[in-house]
Amino acid sequence: MRTKDEFIRSLRDGRTVYFKGEKVDVTTHAFFDPIINHLGVEFEIPEDPQYRDLVTFSPDGKERYSRYFKIPQDSQDLLDRSRIIDLGTRLGGTVVLLIKEIGTDCLFALNITSKQMDAELHTEYFKRVSNYYNYCMKNDLAMAVAQTDVKGDRSLGPSDQEHEDYYVRIVEEKNDGIVVRGAKAHTSYGPCVNEVMVIPTRNLSEKDRQYAVAFAVPANAKGVKMITSPFGGTTRSGFHNPISASHHMVESLTIFDDVFVPWERVFMKGETQFAGPLALRFVQYHRFTAISYKAPILDLLIGAAILIARINGIADTSHAREKIARLIAYSETVKALTKQSALNCRKVEGVAIPDPVYSNIAKWHFASNYHQHVAFVQDLTGGLTVTGPSEEDVNSPQTGEYVRRYLAARKGISAEDRLRVINLIRDLTASDFGGYNEILQIHAEGSIEASKITILREYDARACLDLAQKLAKIKAA
Amino acid sequence: MRTKDEFIRSLRDGRTVYFKGEKVDVTTHAFFDPIINHLGVEFEIPEDPQYRDLVTFSPDGKERYSRYFKIPQDSQDLLDRSRIIDLGTRLGGTVVLLIKEIGTDCLFALNITSKQMDAELHTEYFKRVSNYYNYCMKNDLAMAVAQTDVKGDRSLGPSDQEHEDYYVRIVEEKNDGIVVRGAKAHTSYGPCVNEVMVIPTRNLSEKDRQYAVAFAVPANAKGVKMITSPFGGTTRSGFHNPISASHHMVESLTIFDDVFVPWERVFMKGETQFAGPLALRFVQYHRFTAISYKAPILDLLIGAAILIARINGIADTSHAREKIARLIAYSETVKALTKQSALNCRKVEGVAIPDPVYSNIAKWHFASNYHQHVAFVQDLTGGLTVTGPSEEDVNSPQTGEYVRRYLAARKGISAEDRLRVINLIRDLTASDFGGYNEILQIHAEGSIEASKITILREYDARACLDLAQKLAKIKAA
Amino acid sequence: MRTKDEFIRSLRDGRTVYFKGEKVDVTTHAFFDPIINHLGVEFEIPEDPQYRDLVTFSPDGKERYSRYFKIPQDSQDLLDRSRIIDLGTRLGGTVVLLIKEIGTDCLFALNITSKQMDAELHTEYFKRVSNYYNYCMKNDLAMAVAQTDVKGDRSLGPSDQEHEDYYVRIVEEKNDGIVVRGAKAHTSYGPCVNEVMVIPTRNLSEKDRQYAVAFAVPANAKGVKMITSPFGGTTRSGFHNPISASHHMVESLTIFDDVFVPWERVFMKGETQFAGPLALRFVQYHRFTAISYKAPILDLLIGAAILIARINGIADTSHAREKIARLIAYSETVKALTKQSALNCRKVEGVAIPDPVYSNIAKWHFASNYHQHVAFVQDLTGGLTVTGPSEEDVNSPQTGEYVRRYLAARKGISAEDRLRVINLIRDLTASDFGGYNEILQIHAEGSIEASKITILREYDARACLDLAQKLAKIKAA
Amino acid sequence: MRTKDEFIRSLRDGRTVYFKGEKVDVTTHAFFDPIINHLGVEFEIPEDPQYRDLVTFSPDGKERYSRYFKIPQDSQDLLDRSRIIDLGTRLGGTVVLLIKEIGTDCLFALNITSKQMDAELHTEYFKRVSNYYNYCMKNDLAMAVAQTDVKGDRSLGPSDQEHEDYYVRIVEEKNDGIVVRGAKAHTSYGPCVNEVMVIPTRNLSEKDRQYAVAFAVPANAKGVKMITSPFGGTTRSGFHNPISASHHMVESLTIFDDVFVPWERVFMKGETQFAGPLALRFVQYHRFTAISYKAPILDLLIGAAILIARINGIADTSHAREKIARLIAYSETVKALTKQSALNCRKVEGVAIPDPVYSNIAKWHFASNYHQHVAFVQDLTGGLTVTGPSEEDVNSPQTGEYVRRYLAARKGISAEDRLRVINLIRDLTASDFGGYNEILQIHAEGSIEASKITILREYDARACLDLAQKLAKIKAA
Repeated sequence: MRTKDEFIRSLRDGRTVYFKGEKVDVTTHAFFDPIINHLGVEFEIPEDPQYRDLVTFSPDGKERYSRYFKIPQDSQDLLDRSRIIDLGTRLGGTVVLLIKEIGTDCLFALNITSKQMDAELHTEYFKRVSNYYNYCMKNDLAMAVAQTDVKGDRSLGPSDQEHEDYYVRIVEEKNDGIVVRGAKAHTSYGPCVNEVMVIPTRNLSEKDRQYAVAFAVPANAKGVKMITSPFGGTTRSGFHNPISASHHMVESLTIFDDVFVPWERVFMKGETQFAGPLALRFVQYHRFTAISYKAPILDLLIGAAILIARINGIADTSHAREKIARLIAYSETVKALTKQSALNCRKVEGVAIPDPVYSNIAKWHFASNYHQHVAFVQDLTGGLTVTGPSEEDVNSPQTGEYVRRYLAARKGISAEDRLRVINLIRDLTASDFGGYNEILQIHAEGSIEASKITILREYDARACLDLAQKLAKIKAA
Repeated sequence: MRTKDEFIRSLRDGRTVYFKGEKVDVTTHAFFDPIINHLGVEFEIPEDPQYRDLVTFSPDGKERYSRYFKIPQDSQDLLDRSRIIDLGTRLGGTVVLLIKEIGTDCLFALNITSKQMDAELHTEYFKRVSNYYNYCMKNDLAMAVAQTDVKGDRSLGPSDQEHEDYYVRIVEEKNDGIVVRGAKAHTSYGPCVNEVMVIPTRNLSEKDRQYAVAFAVPANAKGVKMITSPFGGTTRSGFHNPISASHHMVESLTIFDDVFVPWERVFMKGETQFAGPLALRFVQYHRFTAISYKAPILDLLIGAAILIARINGIADTSHAREKIARLIAYSETVKALTKQSALNCRKVEGVAIPDPVYSNIAKWHFASNYHQHVAFVQDLTGGLTVTGPSEEDVNSPQTGEYVRRYLAARKGISAEDRLRVINLIRDLTASDFGGYNEILQIHAEGSIEASKITILREYDARACLDLAQKLAKIKAA
Repeated sequence: MRTKDEFIRSLRDGRTVYFKGEKVDVTTHAFFDPIINHLGVEFEIPEDPQYRDLVTFSPDGKERYSRYFKIPQDSQDLLDRSRIIDLGTRLGGTVVLLIKEIGTDCLFALNITSKQMDAELHTEYFKRVSNYYNYCMKNDLAMAVAQTDVKGDRSLGPSDQEHEDYYVRIVEEKNDGIVVRGAKAHTSYGPCVNEVMVIPTRNLSEKDRQYAVAFAVPANAKGVKMITSPFGGTTRSGFHNPISASHHMVESLTIFDDVFVPWERVFMKGETQFAGPLALRFVQYHRFTAISYKAPILDLLIGAAILIARINGIADTSHAREKIARLIAYSETVKALTKQSALNCRKVEGVAIPDPVYSNIAKWHFASNYHQHVAFVQDLTGGLTVTGPSEEDVNSPQTGEYVRRYLAARKGISAEDRLRVINLIRDLTASDFGGYNEILQIHAEGSIEASKITILREYDARACLDLAQKLAKIKAA
Repeated sequence: MRTKDEFIRSLRDGRTVYFKGEKVDVTTHAFFDPIINHLGVEFEIPEDPQYRDLVTFSPDGKERYSRYFKIPQDSQDLLDRSRIIDLGTRLGGTVVLLIKEIGTDCLFALNITSKQMDAELHTEYFKRVSNYYNYCMKNDLAMAVAQTDVKGDRSLGPSDQEHEDYYVRIVEEKNDGIVVRGAKAHTSYGPCVNEVMVIPTRNLSEKDRQYAVAFAVPANAKGVKMITSPFGGTTRSGFHNPISASHHMVESLTIFDDVFVPWERVFMKGETQFAGPLALRFVQYHRFTAISYKAPILDLLIGAAILIARINGIADTSHAREKIARLIAYSETVKALTKQSALNCRKVEGVAIPDPVYSNIAKWHFASNYHQHVAFVQDLTGGLTVTGPSEEDVNSPQTGEYVRRYLAARKGISAEDRLRVINLIRDLTASDFGGYNEILQIHAEGSIEASKITILREYDARACLDLAQKLAKIKAA
């Protein structure tokens, strides 16, 4: 397994990453500095003896690899996977690391779907997928998944768009591989990984054959161009922004400008009937990842709420107690649903899949209630969240004394500690980073509407209908 | 184990039960007829080969007893208990049978608390409890628990009331036992059980010694008088009220008019410091029972919603889909939390206790969202729920033809089947029985406020506080 | 204007009303007794000097008529109309009287639409409408409106149904009028009015000409048959059901079995393009009626909540205060939106129409939050709502003493008064009548979905779009 | 009346304002540049002929002054006031100007309370208040109000604090005036006004006499020191932050370091019994201001939601329609309640006060639902909100073409226009400025809990209780 330094060095590979309109070296550019340090946590965790057994595994009893690569066989594997996602995110200051999670979500989906394609179409995709899986695992690579096409007019399919490149497509087939063109939106950590995997984003119809494509390229492949988004927190004051100054995500608009992909890295080519199933399979894993990495931010909301309520001297008021009880219920409901998703797993092609009904209820519950629970924490914190003084005011000889005298709260709590907690809450909920969090909770890993559709499709209502029909004394309607 | 007939005969024991101001024989009075038939289900289930193994157990490998009596040792015992509660309720038309559940909840609580009392106070309560437990188990008795005192002014404790009988109390101590006086409100199925167990309802202070009393009496004990509540559904039309015509609960105001209790049935006498803990222990089990018996009604709401949406031809509309998805999420969230309560059980005195955080979140979630989900089902059903014709109109030669012609809906659905589903929904949600259900969901097994208090008290927030303090870079506040 | 007795006598006119499959005389049948007494309130109010000026008007300065007939010219007329609807409902124990409201809603709609039809199609409907309006006003008639067709498969239009009578239609045209056939669901108070007006329920297409029909018939017209719904509260105990024992609505399935309508009472005949507009115009008035008659029940929820909280000794707890504050906010929000609907009225054909955006927001707010606010009141009331004793228990020498001793609450509150308030709340929220209320709030006067559609269609978003475009610095999108 | 330039020049008066620990000149410091330009709008509006009549008034028929100073006599005055608050905020890009609103809110409160003090205590405060009011009006001054004390431990009163300066207090009384010490938190626009008014923040008890103080000082008074908060939006890219780059608020921690106040500017000195009433009176006006300035942001949320739904091609989906309908209902409910607060005004000492029940319901409704409605808008906008490219990417020759090609959406919508709308939404809801907005909605002008308390205290429940008692057939409880 690699060290943090090896990881960082591996990113100095000539990749084409743009930031604010300029090509940059992500290993030296100031914007990327906290992001890469943050991702380095992923490589430090296995070096810590207290975590090693949890976060690594040895498929052959000899070499140890990241446990993210363990193909889940049962509920316990999924529970373990959930735990290591939680751990990484927790040590990453509630910001998911996601350079192993999403890639293995995709590899598991490819594993299952390639077997099904081979069985039905007599292709040989599974072998390619297996080789690629081993390559990533053995080299301990950081992986991104670029799934969401830019889509153009969302009410139209790929072939019906005004512009034929609104979905990534095969523009040429060569002897040794294919050439792809198009763009994928919001590729998480794209500029900071070794490998970029690409899969379709939706069901395709027969006429969409050129869009039915799945493949993987190294991040420095010729023609791959990543336009980095600058949003989501960029300040460097650890006092003002205690989380985001050292932990935040980055996303790119990832351009495939006629990128060549050799056959061994092509995992779907024109099999439109498997585009939707592959997309869905990935999503089944990825929503489980999604709900697994929410635990730390849920814990943080509870912890921050309790802390600030104590500091502000309102911990025993009925309204504070109500809000804290709601935060606990919110958090533990998501966790219980997540566990139930692992415990109710389904097996397909020998691989365990988290129960999609529970994982989507968890995601829906989380996503549709996040803003309200943020509001509870902000309510406990007070207006000072955005009207308080700056780090420099605390340290200035002209103003520091006033700040310390007047902003102390309950006896025994210094103004500075109070401001630290307030700043934590502002950073988490009422800042560029807080805004990023709100958007992430709603949109990442599939929309709220997608969760409802999945629940309706996957739920087995037979016991419910039986009971209703029996009590109504009617035959099936 | 007893047959249904044996159970019914056992109720003909001279007990003092009043209905509408008159003393009645519950085995022959028309009001009690559906209730006793409903409770008979409890005795029919073990006779059914498909259920026998699930609902009975054999502690000594010889005799089989109701599994309700199995003292839980681990998560699996609690999950099994949850399943048999679900089964009984499901076969009882979503109406909990509760003549074994609540009694064993109380016996488990007495088991634990009596051991703790004996250890601390050198009493010999555990032996009495064990003997009584064996007596109930071996005779397959039906049991009620009378916990909620009538309370008078709720803002005052027992000793501070205007009237000293607002909480059940010991009025005399004799050589061979005690004499108790007072009244307990809403004793579920009180008039139809063999045994009534009594425990305190709250924490008591030193001056409340006479109120610190726990005991059991047979339902026909001299001085026990039950005033039956007539509410909650009393019609006899299986067409108009397909559930409640054959399944509903009954509650009594249970009077203890100087009732003598021999020592072997006295389980607490003046130990005020254990009154609260015993009350709480019972509640810990009983809230788990509560959330376990909700599953059938949740399934029924989903099933009824899908059925009526199909019948009304609106199953594919977005608003119907939204409502059904919400019903599923509501139901499965309660179930996931219930399972987590069993899986996270705690052991005290060698006995497994369901995790109170999860069971109370489940109860809170259920209770505070029930009315809204009822509204969703009513919305899908339409105004005809309360404006439709009667059973007699369907059968009358003068009106039947009109009803059949005009109230048919989607092709293939007869007016009669449509009305049967509508009547099911009205009975369940918009009737005396539906009103009973609404009150039950809010108040039974402890209030919503009680759940919040328990969650706040029992939740271990250390991980949350650690994370918040670490990220805020402060020491503990 | 008529007296209550004159009104009752007028119902003894040979009409064909069925109850439980049998033809009945509504003026003597026990089921109708409280309904007719309840409706009598409508005729008693104008006799009370304190109300006379409010509830009557004199178009010519001579004769006084019910103010319901005053065709609204401005906001003040609508505010007055709202007040008299509130008053009647309040004196009717929160149950809307609705034998003047709905009829005049329909007359106003016919007034406007007939003018528009005459202008566009050179018909002479307005004259017929005016004559009929004068006839109803001068004879002080009770009127019902039968609008909702039985509809069959809701996803199909009238002409596409399996059965051509699922919408009321013209089956024959004669020299002196038309013959109509079909059925209308849930006609409020149909069996107890003098006149039944019929209008279309939806937009119609060209092929639906036979369904484009509006007319009025006396309730005893040959071929009019009303099948009375028995639901919604039928007990006669003023103690158990203090409201519904003397006040409740009644609905009928109203059959038009080849009913002849003379020309002067035909207000639409085949003008499909005006079917939707007439339906909509009626609804615009009727939703305003709907929100106007909610005020008393909203007041009652607040009053009952405060009373029971005081009686139970919990009025000062934070959770009770929270619930009462929410009840007040709920009530006053509906009232403020109602007033705004009147204040923002639009004028069409010289007649003032309540603003449909505000009336529909009011209705949506009321309908989608009713169940939750009922839950708050039930929560404050306690389990005794459905576990308490009967009237007979209170009066029985055997049990009365126990009830009085044990069910007293806070000092100074007798058990009987406590039970009276509890019974009021059970009757209102947790009974057949309470269930009727829940269904009524959701479905009467148009569904929640219909309100949303209206809001979206009627809202003028220009100021909103202007601001967004200006701040985004873009041209119109 | 003054021009924008005169206003700016007036701020160059030697005042002591700190920003990031340094004393700064607000008229030249870059941080304050957009703020002062934003406030300049207040002085430009009266110069615009289309607004002049609305925003000015002439008490004597000669000179015209800002209409903010018009002491409200009736509902119409309050409706006018609401309109000009809306107008200023709308022209200020949804950011309230608040240099006239809050000051006059305070002047009206002082007007009433000083009359009451004079009447009861034979003081002469009203004269001082009148003179000061005329001074501010005639000189068209910008005013801030510093009310919220820093409070220390919120569970203790001023005199019980560990540190006696946690509430502003009189430390010395001189012949010509008083000397005050302490600090007030979050003074809106404090660094950019001419006058700072100070009033108590809560009820005081007899022992708190030194804290019962109200007065006004010029912003450059000796000893007044303002520590500016740097939060809430500081970027300067009109593309990334189309609102906050040119419009945002600023708050200060305002220190009174032994500030001398001459008698004519002292409006309360030790009259503890009037501290609470004055605080409350101010709040009654200020909450009305609060709900009046919400209208533009509510309109913007609706407009932005419709725009982005159209651009993204989802305007006709049921979930988008649902969200837009909810946004409209949310907005219009706040507006209807605001109007009702004006229409139901109460008169005290000849001055009209907005109805506090309606204004607090409006505030509560707004504050407790804001986050959820923000979530709806974010949901419609998509993940691109925080994963999209920068302004520089759009303009760069290396990346601009990709952005334009791939991020176009529905036909006819350019990528740049799409990004402009997305940026508007991110700025408003998911940024430092968006976070500021969230906190503002919850905390400004009084907390949600304060609104509930006010509603409960001010609501006249007599009609509700009468109805409940009459229907329950009981006497008052």
